Amino acid sequence: MSDKHALPATLTYDPVTDRPQEECGVFAVYGSEDAGVLTALGLHALQHRGQEACGIATHDGSRFHVERYLGLVGENFTSADMPQRLPGNVAIGHVRYSTQGASVLRNVQPLYSDVRGGGIALAHNGHITNARVLREELVSNGAIFQSTSDSEVVLHLAALSRKSKLTNRLSHALKQIEGAFAFVVLVNDRLIAARDPHGIRPLVMGQLGDAVVFASETTALDMVGATYTRDVEPGEAIILSDGEMRSERFSPARAARPCAFEFIYFARPDSNIGGRSVYEARKEMGRQLAREMPVDVDVIIPVPDSGVPAALGYSEASGIPFELGIIRSHFVGRTFIQPNQDRRDMSVRLKHSANAAAVRGKRVLLIDDSIVRGTTSLKIVRLMREAGATEVHFRSACPPIKFPDFYGIDMAGQKELIAANMDVEQMAAKLEADSLAFLTVDGMYQAITGGPRNDRAPQLSDHYFTGEYPTRLMDHDRSLSAKEFQLSLLVDA
Amino acid sequence: MSDKHALPATLTYDPVTDRPQEECGVFAVYGSEDAGVLTALGLHALQHRGQEACGIATHDGSRFHVERYLGLVGENFTSADMPQRLPGNVAIGHVRYSTQGASVLRNVQPLYSDVRGGGIALAHNGHITNARVLREELVSNGAIFQSTSDSEVVLHLAALSRKSKLTNRLSHALKQIEGAFAFVVLVNDRLIAARDPHGIRPLVMGQLGDAVVFASETTALDMVGATYTRDVEPGEAIILSDGEMRSERFSPARAARPCAFEFIYFARPDSNIGGRSVYEARKEMGRQLAREMPVDVDVIIPVPDSGVPAALGYSEASGIPFELGIIRSHFVGRTFIQPNQDRRDMSVRLKHSANAAAVRGKRVLLIDDSIVRGTTSLKIVRLMREAGATEVHFRSACPPIKFPDFYGIDMAGQKELIAANMDVEQMAAKLEADSLAFLTVDGMYQAITGGPRNDRAPQLSDHYFTGEYPTRLMDHDRSLSAKEFQLSLLVDA
Amino acid sequence: MSDKHALPATLTYDPVTDRPQEECGVFAVYGSEDAGVLTALGLHALQHRGQEACGIATHDGSRFHVERYLGLVGENFTSADMPQRLPGNVAIGHVRYSTQGASVLRNVQPLYSDVRGGGIALAHNGHITNARVLREELVSNGAIFQSTSDSEVVLHLAALSRKSKLTNRLSHALKQIEGAFAFVVLVNDRLIAARDPHGIRPLVMGQLGDAVVFASETTALDMVGATYTRDVEPGEAIILSDGEMRSERFSPARAARPCAFEFIYFARPDSNIGGRSVYEARKEMGRQLAREMPVDVDVIIPVPDSGVPAALGYSEASGIPFELGIIRSHFVGRTFIQPNQDRRDMSVRLKHSANAAAVRGKRVLLIDDSIVRGTTSLKIVRLMREAGATEVHFRSACPPIKFPDFYGIDMAGQKELIAANMDVEQMAAKLEADSLAFLTVDGMYQAITGGPRNDRAPQLSDHYFTGEYPTRLMDHDRSLSAKEFQLSLLVDA
Amino acid sequence: MSDKHALPATLTYDPVTDRPQEECGVFAVYGSEDAGVLTALGLHALQHRGQEACGIATHDGSRFHVERYLGLVGENFTSADMPQRLPGNVAIGHVRYSTQGASVLRNVQPLYSDVRGGGIALAHNGHITNARVLREELVSNGAIFQSTSDSEVVLHLAALSRKSKLTNRLSHALKQIEGAFAFVVLVNDRLIAARDPHGIRPLVMGQLGDAVVFASETTALDMVGATYTRDVEPGEAIILSDGEMRSERFSPARAARPCAFEFIYFARPDSNIGGRSVYEARKEMGRQLAREMPVDVDVIIPVPDSGVPAALGYSEASGIPFELGIIRSHFVGRTFIQPNQDRRDMSVRLKHSANAAAVRGKRVLLIDDSIVRGTTSLKIVRLMREAGATEVHFRSACPPIKFPDFYGIDMAGQKELIAANMDVEQMAAKLEADSLAFLTVDGMYQAITGGPRNDRAPQLSDHYFTGEYPTRLMDHDRSLSAKEFQLSLLVDA
Repeated sequence: MSDKHALPATLTYDPVTDRPQEECGVFAVYGSEDAGVLTALGLHALQHRGQEACGIATHDGSRFHVERYLGLVGENFTSADMPQRLPGNVAIGHVRYSTQGASVLRNVQPLYSDVRGGGIALAHNGHITNARVLREELVSNGAIFQSTSDSEVVLHLAALSRKSKLTNRLSHALKQIEGAFAFVVLVNDRLIAARDPHGIRPLVMGQLGDAVVFASETTALDMVGATYTRDVEPGEAIILSDGEMRSERFSPARAARPCAFEFIYFARPDSNIGGRSVYEARKEMGRQLAREMPVDVDVIIPVPDSGVPAALGYSEASGIPFELGIIRSHFVGRTFIQPNQDRRDMSVRLKHSANAAAVRGKRVLLIDDSIVRGTTSLKIVRLMREAGATEVHFRSACPPIKFPDFYGIDMAGQKELIAANMDVEQMAAKLEADSLAFLTVDGMYQAITGGPRNDRAPQLSDHYFTGEYPTRLMDHDRSLSAKEFQLSLLVDA
Repeated sequence: MSDKHALPATLTYDPVTDRPQEECGVFAVYGSEDAGVLTALGLHALQHRGQEACGIATHDGSRFHVERYLGLVGENFTSADMPQRLPGNVAIGHVRYSTQGASVLRNVQPLYSDVRGGGIALAHNGHITNARVLREELVSNGAIFQSTSDSEVVLHLAALSRKSKLTNRLSHALKQIEGAFAFVVLVNDRLIAARDPHGIRPLVMGQLGDAVVFASETTALDMVGATYTRDVEPGEAIILSDGEMRSERFSPARAARPCAFEFIYFARPDSNIGGRSVYEARKEMGRQLAREMPVDVDVIIPVPDSGVPAALGYSEASGIPFELGIIRSHFVGRTFIQPNQDRRDMSVRLKHSANAAAVRGKRVLLIDDSIVRGTTSLKIVRLMREAGATEVHFRSACPPIKFPDFYGIDMAGQKELIAANMDVEQMAAKLEADSLAFLTVDGMYQAITGGPRNDRAPQLSDHYFTGEYPTRLMDHDRSLSAKEFQLSLLVDA
Repeated sequence: MSDKHALPATLTYDPVTDRPQEECGVFAVYGSEDAGVLTALGLHALQHRGQEACGIATHDGSRFHVERYLGLVGENFTSADMPQRLPGNVAIGHVRYSTQGASVLRNVQPLYSDVRGGGIALAHNGHITNARVLREELVSNGAIFQSTSDSEVVLHLAALSRKSKLTNRLSHALKQIEGAFAFVVLVNDRLIAARDPHGIRPLVMGQLGDAVVFASETTALDMVGATYTRDVEPGEAIILSDGEMRSERFSPARAARPCAFEFIYFARPDSNIGGRSVYEARKEMGRQLAREMPVDVDVIIPVPDSGVPAALGYSEASGIPFELGIIRSHFVGRTFIQPNQDRRDMSVRLKHSANAAAVRGKRVLLIDDSIVRGTTSLKIVRLMREAGATEVHFRSACPPIKFPDFYGIDMAGQKELIAANMDVEQMAAKLEADSLAFLTVDGMYQAITGGPRNDRAPQLSDHYFTGEYPTRLMDHDRSLSAKEFQLSLLVDA
Repeated sequence: MSDKHALPATLTYDPVTDRPQEECGVFAVYGSEDAGVLTALGLHALQHRGQEACGIATHDGSRFHVERYLGLVGENFTSADMPQRLPGNVAIGHVRYSTQGASVLRNVQPLYSDVRGGGIALAHNGHITNARVLREELVSNGAIFQSTSDSEVVLHLAALSRKSKLTNRLSHALKQIEGAFAFVVLVNDRLIAARDPHGIRPLVMGQLGDAVVFASETTALDMVGATYTRDVEPGEAIILSDGEMRSERFSPARAARPCAFEFIYFARPDSNIGGRSVYEARKEMGRQLAREMPVDVDVIIPVPDSGVPAALGYSEASGIPFELGIIRSHFVGRTFIQPNQDRRDMSVRLKHSANAAAVRGKRVLLIDDSIVRGTTSLKIVRLMREAGATEVHFRSACPPIKFPDFYGIDMAGQKELIAANMDVEQMAAKLEADSLAFLTVDGMYQAITGGPRNDRAPQLSDHYFTGEYPTRLMDHDRSLSAKEFQLSLLVDA
């Protein structure tokens, strides 16, 4: 009999811990009286890039207006008085997946600061890899930080720059930072959009009537009805001022090397990156996987929703039927109480349930876009067996993930990456799969870029699989060589 | 220039108005010390049947415990003290789509009443078609109603019954009501599960160790790990008392005639109804549609998510590729401000966006499970054309919906049903589709039951398509013949 | 050192448990287009009679509108759309101190019910002493109760009455109940105001232009600018219908016998009861106390705020200076964490602090309106000593409270009443007071009525002091003679 | 008839606009394991000094913990896990009346900043009169401000100071600011308490066992059981570090010149300032007023609650009876809907009602602590006449307020100060009073300091009455001589 006085076990749904988390999306409009309203719509289309917080800043010709909230765009930027609350012809916006806990509103973007000559509002997707080094130096010189966000160093560098023009001060700041970034910045009524020297994070430009629009993904251009013009180039800053557009470089010209994971998981399938359809790339990764790693099964079953395009591609190339063998609930049940008498792990069922009609008595191939820690994968393999699958095979539509990211993706640490700690055979045993295989690195390149990896100048940021990082990692190297330095003495509520 | 003082136009996402709404799901457990906890898990699996409110009642051997909330199960029944708050070995639960506005907590179920001999708690899926007639009579005899819910008449009929045993009083009440219903009722520590005389609404029984479980759908049995025993039969009441189970009939034996829309749209694809897999039925409707209504196109595109199984079936039968040509956002944006300068209807984009890579330059066939008003269908046809489709055809995986429901489904009124007011050609023009076709009634029967419609004893409740209602419609006939009678003089906040 | 793992002690402010609680106030308007708005203002003036919940019902000529909330009037009935939300020329309202826990919204008044011939909305101050007996009989006959409130029996009695006119059915119901009550009732667009046969609870009538107003206290008439007409008489029902007023009796004519505690504590000092100023009565109780129970001290210090008028009277009659020796905080701090190292009881300080300048080195006389349990009294005596008082004497401006109330006052049970369990000397020791004395019963009568108690026909309901209850106590006698019967099997959340 | 479509007039209670607002209170503890818990209790005792926001910062030996909230202390710092959430032996706290709108959480104190060598948390009562000038210079040198609070300049000055020890850097900052201030500051685990060079704002020190406590008022020492040690001196900084206390001066020794309004209105009556009981000072102002400005009336009636002590003093000195002629509601009703048909201004009644029994037929003298704009005074005079007073005289227990404050008191601007714009006769007419008189400046000095004003070295900050400000007003002079400079370009939500 159960002990009524013991705290009941709880049953937590945990996909968050088993899936990399994109940290941000940005959007901006220059030259439309609807700038604030359009930015809300654009951010809604980028909501998959960050659901914990959102913010919009506008400039009305004389003053800034900033609103920042925890929660979704659709919960916070839909009231009828938005045009009055966020007036102006220029706007920037941000969605964020906060890694520092839900309550830290002070880290929500756009960040804002009064500076000599006016004000700067800034939204950032990515990660500055020398932010801690810069911050330590700034604090030591008397700077006061309002957040623990790496993005704030840009504000300080611009504030401290002795250049006379404010836009020049921002360019001055951009030259001092390293890493991956897509910035949209309001400098009074001027808009600056800038992308990191390697083009790791995506940033596209579009046209909407007379207005210019910037977004992390093309799907946000589609949402507001803008037409895609071009990608912002690596190391390029595009400045809109007094109705004129000009382009500046703050680093040498270089081919973009976009993050492979945008293609694999983060970007919406209806977006294009560097002109390549994300949906097509994913299907092709599935087709390539079928060619590289065939298996004799009765049905192809995607791990929903992210495994669906690759599974369609695999089915197409292999001729094996595609079935919805797993039903995903859209009602999130973060934590339920685990029944006392139940000895199974029920947590997977809160989100996924087996469709026995498609599974029972079949040899099943599960396709997922990637395997990070493998914890959910194991639960899904077991779910298939409980539903009557006679064999359960597993394929990952990307290569084994062996190295962490330092460019704004909150993936597990290296110790938790299953592929960093086991070979494929061990992983198959761990996942209790009858077979396990991964797409090869060259297969991935083939699917995304149409050719093999150029090892001297790789076309993608593929450090997850190769360990080759496109930039120096100054903060990281520092904390490995010395003891970890603390970002702030403040423990926030 | 826009008038800053005018109220800005708002941009509302409206799938709710273009999709029938199931009004409820029920779940019950008898004989487990985890009854309350299991009921929460079971209701989570039934959340798709009603998202506006939820409630659980338990009996601890001497007293009842009831908690009812607006909102989702996962928001309300997950705290660690649930076993203390909802103690007892017997529980019933309810999820509800409220048609009377979000704030009417007094209508949320389970309903409860003290009666002579104890108490009754009751949860109901369906609709009692003579509830208003009964209510009028009860009020005229001095009964005081606490809700405007049709379910409350059952409580009053049981309270007023002069039978000596409480369970007999409930049976007495069940004999007086007409319509569609699946009831789970606590009469003190006894549990009664009852299904309407025609088996219109679903209700299944399962076993979990020594405990007996009832649920609207088999997926909820899977969630808690229970095994399916059988369906509750039409007109049957199953009574669990003192550890014993017995079955009673309150109407003559008759084959079940389940609601066709459970197969078409409402039930989860991983559920079985009357032993038939819902997923398989939907795929087969797609295959049948391909056979009946072929069309020469390049790609099959489902209207997500409900059109997916039928589209897979159509693709399979026709050999035409299946593509995710429409991406659905899972972030609900109910209302956004419409930009002033935009002349397009952007509302569809808040939920659906075209995946141009799969659509551009192609002849497209859209497949949806059904067409109710046609308003969303039109928007999606336009979305496809804007994305570059050269032709856009449309197929509905169920027959034309011409008649309203009176059994608990909140579908549009007859005036709003597009198929009740136009022929197929007119509808195609209205939807701006290059062609439009519907599954035939016999094709639907073939897919669901494996044979044609038996016109003398139809195997399904198919009044949506045929106008043949399985029961009398006493309230409805009364309000057509006389002036509509008012349910309550109270206008609720 | 403290144990960091131990639950820290909490520090709770508890005046609520040491002060009788009035349970309700009522207000009503007939014949003003502002009926709802005026009722909100009137209820605000009666807020001291109940702070846990409030509600207003109006009738717009064809339908009822009811809004009920937990919380204060000023938090719930102030929005600009009130006239639209609560339309009509007739309104009733209620403020409530709920004894059944904050969350039981179903017990908040006005109660409402559809009945044969229309609807009834009802608000009640007081307590029906045969409500349980009536309820048991009603439930046994099939009635379903929506609340555990004693007031609901009136709705059922009226609903079941076979009288043809609805107002007659209400009168029929009033004849069957016993106890103390002031009712304001809407029967469709008619207003009925009724007071119990002994006039225990107060109810006054006023005129505001063409409109008629009813209220528990005259201060609410002042708030809306109405002029006092007269008290509703004991056993009288005043009916306003079709613009006409008529008076009916449902019990024999009898002099009112108002509750003594309205004069002592409950009513606002600026109200009049039966023509007597409450403020004047309280001052006179203080003067009388000075005459009856003199003491040689340096200063008179009221226990704020309720002891102030009596202390002013005592000071006036004795010539001893009145000083604000205790400062009361208006910021409620229900629960704070008790510091680990502190051994004093700090809870009293959350609400009261000593004004040492008025106390140090002085012989102090504390005056309070009454002593119920004595727990706060003790803390205040200690507070005075800590602040440097050389002697601390205590006087209660009413006689010793020895008997509980059954007419709607939530006073402590008899076991907790200090005067029911100790003689004056024991009480003085318990309160650590240098002397203690109470006003005599005749002194109280003298102060309130201008003469001694008429023992054959007491002019007040004075059972607190005498044990002579003005009515039978049917429910109470029943539960003493048999085992306590349970009101409901439902344990509410 | 009323126009149903017009927005109904609202009825707003406005004492806030007619009463000066103290902006802050501070509290600090050094050397107690209960530091956080004691600070919550201390702040509760200072709640009258600011009700819009509150915050506590502690240091646990290695890190800071800060929690800041909108709302009352009792609403935010009472949960049982406070000792875990705010650990450490040293704590500072702050209550604030925010003048910038309720939502500006970024302005709530304690402010915090990482700096070279550690961190600084700071709480401030008062106003820095050269904050804008300093801020402009700091921003121009690249500083980024996180708030618009004047207090933040201190953080920046300390962060930029090149002194090596952190406490020295804070002293360096204190030397650069002007105005009125009481600071409690955590510099890592050191506590610094500092008071402005003129001692305008109060700050006292107490002892609690081994711990040292600082507070804005002595009543907060009483709350936590600490004994008063002494006032912090003007221009003194007391530093607690490594268990040692030392005192430093950052300005020349000078007698304190406390703000007269602390005695008149702000401080709690049970506090002492500079050894003088506030309650005694107020009573004495009343006695002095009776001597200076006698009048032949029947009753003395205080404007509650702040006029009570002066009215008691006036009554004592004049021999005229003191009566509670106005009853104040403690239930705030900020905004109610004004009835359509009512032509009176009902707003005063939401807070004050006449006690006719004490007023009718009497010649009344109203006593208030001060008259700022006179709007409420006028309403109260009318209230007395409506209640039947035959004459209504008015006396202010402080001299006429002719000049605004710049030291942290949010009083009306000079244009709104009635005494700055009218002579006494005009004011009497405006207030519709039969006579009006004010305490003289020397009378006020007599009551507070025991002697007349020393014109060469006034003992109080009395600029309200005399226009003699104790300090330069650099920001103010600058904005008068040039155009007003803007604090920030950001319009906050």
